[in-house]
Amino acid sequence: MKEIDLNVRCDTECPIKTTSSLIEGKWTTLVIRELLSGKKRYSEIQRALEGISPKVLTTRLRFLEEKKILTRTVYPTIPPATEYQLTELGYGLEPVLLAMASFGETLSNSQS
Amino acid sequence: MKEIDLNVRCDTECPIKTTSSLIEGKWTTLVIRELLSGKKRYSEIQRALEGISPKVLTTRLRFLEEKKILTRTVYPTIPPATEYQLTELGYGLEPVLLAMASFGETLSNSQS
Repeated sequence: MKEIDLNVRCDTECPIKTTSSLIEGKWTTLVIRELLSGKKRYSEIQRALEGISPKVLTTRLRFLEEKKILTRTVYPTIPPATEYQLTELGYGLEPVLLAMASFGETLSNSQS
Repeated sequence: MKEIDLNVRCDTECPIKTTSSLIEGKWTTLVIRELLSGKKRYSEIQRALEGISPKVLTTRLRFLEEKKILTRTVYPTIPPATEYQLTELGYGLEPVLLAMASFGETLSNSQS
C-alpha cells in the first residue's frame, strides 16, 4: 500500500478526497459491504439494510454503477430480476472497508 | 486486521457505520490527514485546506475533539495560539486514510 505523501497539498487531485467523495453518505459503504460476499438482487440488498428507503438505495446503486464500482444485470423474467455485482474496481474498496471496520471496533471499545 | 464478518447484519452497532459517521463530510479526512504529520496550529490547517471556511473548520475540529480523535491546546500568548494534535485513537485512522489514498489512485487511473 502506497504511503501518503504528507508534504504534498491535498487539493482537488487528492486521492483521499477522491475516495471520500465516492463513499460518503450514510449507506454507500454498507451497500458495497453487502456485495463483497457476491452478487445480490435488489430485494436482498434492501432486506439487509434495514431502514434504507427504495429511493435512496436506487440512487446509491445508480451512482455506484456510473462510477463503475458495480454492474447491474436485468434478467427478462416475469417479474424482471435485477442483480448487482461488484466490478474488479469495486472489490478494490475491500481494504478501505476492512480498515474502517477495524477502526470502528477500536472506537466503540474506547467509548464503552 | 480483523476480517469483516459478512454473515452478520450491519446494523446500528456495525463498525463500518461507526467509522463512516465519524469521517463523513467533505473535509474531515483531510483535517485528519494534515495532523498525521504532527501537531498543527489552526492557521496552518486552514492554509493547508484551500477553500475550507473558518466555520466549517471550527465545527469539524470541535466534533473531532468531542470524539477524542484530537486534542486542542490553547497557549496563553497574545494573541492566544491554539494547537491541535491527534490522540492515540486518532492515529488509529491512519490505516483507513492509507487505504483510501491507495484506492483513490486506482480510481483516478481507471477513469483517465
